[in-house]
Amino acid sequence: MLKHPDCKYRASAPIGLKDRTWPDAVLTRAPIWLSTDLRDGNQALVEPMDIARKMRMFETLVAIGFKEIEVGFPSASQIEFDFVRKLIEEDRIPDDVTIQVLTQARDHLIERTFESVRGAPRVIVHLYNAVAPIMRRVVLGMDEDQIVELAASHARLFNELAAKQPATQWTFQYSPEMFSGTELTFSKRVVDAVTEVWAPTPERKCIVNLPSTVEHSTPNIFADMIEWMHRHLARRDSIVLCVHPHNDRGTGTAAGEFALMAGAERIEGCLFGNGERTGNLDLVNVALNLYTQGVSPGLDFSNIDEIRATVEHCNQLPVHPRHPYVGDLVYTSFSGSHQDAIKKAFAARKDGDMWEMPYLPIDPKDVGRSYEAVIRVNSQSGKGGISYLLESEYGLELPRRLQIEFSQVVQRVMDVAGKEFTAADLWQIFEQEYRIGDPRMVPQHRVLEERGEGADAWVVLHADLPWEGEVRRIEGQGNGPIDAFIHALADATGHEIRVIDYHQHAIGAGADAQAVAYLELRVDESQTLFGVGRDANIVSASLKAIVSGLVRARAQVATSAQSEAAEAA
Amino acid sequence: MLKHPDCKYRASAPIGLKDRTWPDAVLTRAPIWLSTDLRDGNQALVEPMDIARKMRMFETLVAIGFKEIEVGFPSASQIEFDFVRKLIEEDRIPDDVTIQVLTQARDHLIERTFESVRGAPRVIVHLYNAVAPIMRRVVLGMDEDQIVELAASHARLFNELAAKQPATQWTFQYSPEMFSGTELTFSKRVVDAVTEVWAPTPERKCIVNLPSTVEHSTPNIFADMIEWMHRHLARRDSIVLCVHPHNDRGTGTAAGEFALMAGAERIEGCLFGNGERTGNLDLVNVALNLYTQGVSPGLDFSNIDEIRATVEHCNQLPVHPRHPYVGDLVYTSFSGSHQDAIKKAFAARKDGDMWEMPYLPIDPKDVGRSYEAVIRVNSQSGKGGISYLLESEYGLELPRRLQIEFSQVVQRVMDVAGKEFTAADLWQIFEQEYRIGDPRMVPQHRVLEERGEGADAWVVLHADLPWEGEVRRIEGQGNGPIDAFIHALADATGHEIRVIDYHQHAIGAGADAQAVAYLELRVDESQTLFGVGRDANIVSASLKAIVSGLVRARAQVATSAQSEAAEAA
Repeated sequence: MLKHPDCKYRASAPIGLKDRTWPDAVLTRAPIWLSTDLRDGNQALVEPMDIARKMRMFETLVAIGFKEIEVGFPSASQIEFDFVRKLIEEDRIPDDVTIQVLTQARDHLIERTFESVRGAPRVIVHLYNAVAPIMRRVVLGMDEDQIVELAASHARLFNELAAKQPATQWTFQYSPEMFSGTELTFSKRVVDAVTEVWAPTPERKCIVNLPSTVEHSTPNIFADMIEWMHRHLARRDSIVLCVHPHNDRGTGTAAGEFALMAGAERIEGCLFGNGERTGNLDLVNVALNLYTQGVSPGLDFSNIDEIRATVEHCNQLPVHPRHPYVGDLVYTSFSGSHQDAIKKAFAARKDGDMWEMPYLPIDPKDVGRSYEAVIRVNSQSGKGGISYLLESEYGLELPRRLQIEFSQVVQRVMDVAGKEFTAADLWQIFEQEYRIGDPRMVPQHRVLEERGEGADAWVVLHADLPWEGEVRRIEGQGNGPIDAFIHALADATGHEIRVIDYHQHAIGAGADAQAVAYLELRVDESQTLFGVGRDANIVSASLKAIVSGLVRARAQVATSAQSEAAEAA
Repeated sequence: MLKHPDCKYRASAPIGLKDRTWPDAVLTRAPIWLSTDLRDGNQALVEPMDIARKMRMFETLVAIGFKEIEVGFPSASQIEFDFVRKLIEEDRIPDDVTIQVLTQARDHLIERTFESVRGAPRVIVHLYNAVAPIMRRVVLGMDEDQIVELAASHARLFNELAAKQPATQWTFQYSPEMFSGTELTFSKRVVDAVTEVWAPTPERKCIVNLPSTVEHSTPNIFADMIEWMHRHLARRDSIVLCVHPHNDRGTGTAAGEFALMAGAERIEGCLFGNGERTGNLDLVNVALNLYTQGVSPGLDFSNIDEIRATVEHCNQLPVHPRHPYVGDLVYTSFSGSHQDAIKKAFAARKDGDMWEMPYLPIDPKDVGRSYEAVIRVNSQSGKGGISYLLESEYGLELPRRLQIEFSQVVQRVMDVAGKEFTAADLWQIFEQEYRIGDPRMVPQHRVLEERGEGADAWVVLHADLPWEGEVRRIEGQGNGPIDAFIHALADATGHEIRVIDYHQHAIGAGADAQAVAYLELRVDESQTLFGVGRDANIVSASLKAIVSGLVRARAQVATSAQSEAAEAA
């Protein structure tokens, strides 16, 4: 690093908007949300999604409540084109959802893009070209007039191609690329030239999207730029003003919120902030920030862990344990004084009270989570910890959320025992809690049929399940043995189980090697907890883990029913 | 989630500071930095650091250039107390560094805190008590007058205890806890009462720290609050005004930067944003944001990957691949048009030019990283990808940075071959590039001596190294076999190697099981690259990986020397 970076880097200058109004604005309603998980998010993955993952992401976005979804860049590759066709031809787009497709400002790409959406009832076609000075000078070798003409001529092509497919309801969107690094007056000039061609009306608006393609400044400067555009754009009443913030300086969320306060009405981003480099604006973060201010975002994150698991599966990228609203550690309290304050505030809280809880800006229940007070096994931090002892002595590598769950089990036992524990004590508590090695936890299974792979995989399985004192033969089908077993269990016991997270590792080596499976389960849409299974056979380890979790879930329900009965008595 | 969250959540109201100045401020110098990695960061870990990890964190913070470091909460536990004693008694605190210790406002805790720092030349003692209305009403049951008196009386105890240890140079710091959730006028009243007791002067200032203990509002409101305090606090010229932002709404970085623009002079946080729940302000993020605006932060992140590896080791928490400035993916470009623009801009750039690079807000070299264009093996995204094929067909689980490195190797071969690759082709390229199974890569080793464990471990090892056509007997010592081998290599070959990252997994099972080790190495302080080794013995796999990396590093130097010679000729 340079001692004098001023020789290499320039500060972003304020634009001098003295009469700004955004710092006094309070958001009172949700913006129009646009998910670009399938476009900007997907293109930034080391391994982009295949069709099955894309479909799963699309369906998740629809289930959350997105009404506008950018589904791809159809002129960029065959797989992108095919996915758009599949959505349309298989009639996968709900009536209240509009798909969006992106295209560069080049004739043949635009033509291919319009081709890709043939037959769709409603489409937003999104045009972009580079307008920033660095791009004009170094990359394109074009002057300002040429850039304006380039944008306007491609806007005209949009009019022509749309006219040829009159059955589709078209919305046009334009992005001056690298708006955040462009002179404001020039951005306005290009946008005005494009909207002049499109001639939108207040009844048939077009979308103007202002991207911070790269975040170059503190977010107040971006907000000033948006407010300036909001005030100066021609045909403002016929425009939906939109922003597309990136996060290079770690301030994408603030930039997006300020842009809405400054006059933007629509916002583009990805779930949990996926996207090029440091990512796009995190839609979940902004939506839940609104929620905690009493504004309904119109998006449903009432089971945030399941959405996270799906997104991690599709993107093959983790969500960080400290990620706002969803990370493993964000509803966890380690400090004794924090725990004490939260306990007192819960005790003082009455039904219907406004939410006012120290250290918890949102009620974890509202997103399907729970508050967890982690009390350490002893004051010896580090090497005396539960996970450390179980790993070093017994080879168990507990997933982080299981560490948190198990620490509370240990705490309950410790409250009774009143002593510190050895590794052997902890192992015994673990074994008992998760029914490791319990013969009743052993569903003997056999795969009857197995065919196909990937999205087409199909398995039929039966198992002998020790259940309520007898052994029952159960049978189920699914896309894999776990899925088939869960269906068999549902038929036999009436319990609905979904696997939220899955970890497995080997213990030991050679002929004695065993697999340990940790499955985080959602049982009957009401309990989230772990099951653990150990077996030389990796499938058996997983099935044991499912039974372990189900038995624990039933035990918890029984315990809480007992204590309610005791209180009533 | 509630459809009408306004029944449960209240919006944070703007404070109505109409003549605010912070939105026009531009930061032109670095604040005073305070790292609380060893206090707020440490207390929020599932497994807090042991003494060895704490010491490693402290030394890393000193090496980065922190002059003020909060080293613990000595009255909270014996390990915290002992660590502070160790720093002082072993004379570990450099002359230009001041340690800080935190204490709650209770007599015996304050006394124990002053006891813990006996003999230290310079200390910042940091007092906090809760002042927020929710804490007064629900947790403490105290009215405003009682809170003020509680703070003032403990401030007086500070004066008394400091007077008893006159050899130490004392600085006092006060935090009104949950400042962000407290009425401004009451925060001012408590702070003024404390500073009246301490009677600071412009020559002997005290520190007033305003924490957003929980982030409740958009960061412009926090900025307004700080500017209000900055203007209204008594004895302002004798106060170092400090902030301590958290990140519950994902806007901690913005809140911290705005606070500095609003009048704060000092900022508290953690490396990469560790800390309670969603974490503290990320000091690296804010420092490098300043750097890219031409302001020297006074902190050195010229080898950011090594700092990351240390922090991940100490905290046992990962840094996310999209984390600003440091994530695996943030200097990586996947889009063809981005790659094209960057290529042209690099070509146009002359030595000494200001940094103006599309899509790269910082020169990756300034933090020891490099820009990487990832060109996909083929247009089939997803299942056709390199990592997918190597994992599904050969069981290799490449770490993400190695995936990026290897994709460029593949790209170079593909440029020559001009075809798409099968899994077998990729495996062959991988085998050749990383010299897997090459007999020259097999340093036969024997451990001669092994004693102690943890921080006291000591190993002496010798190995027969095939090197430049002969087999050399080399010998080295270190805290483990890898460390000893690296020292032996340095003696024998003159190459300095540091291990930046380490991954290992098993392939196969039973008697045929093999370990594959992936080591990211820094060679001769100039090259960062991976070595890979495979062996039934896990130590041998690692040693092979080191030789693999070293041989690759030498081959790269030779290639670039050749091409320079060819250009010169």
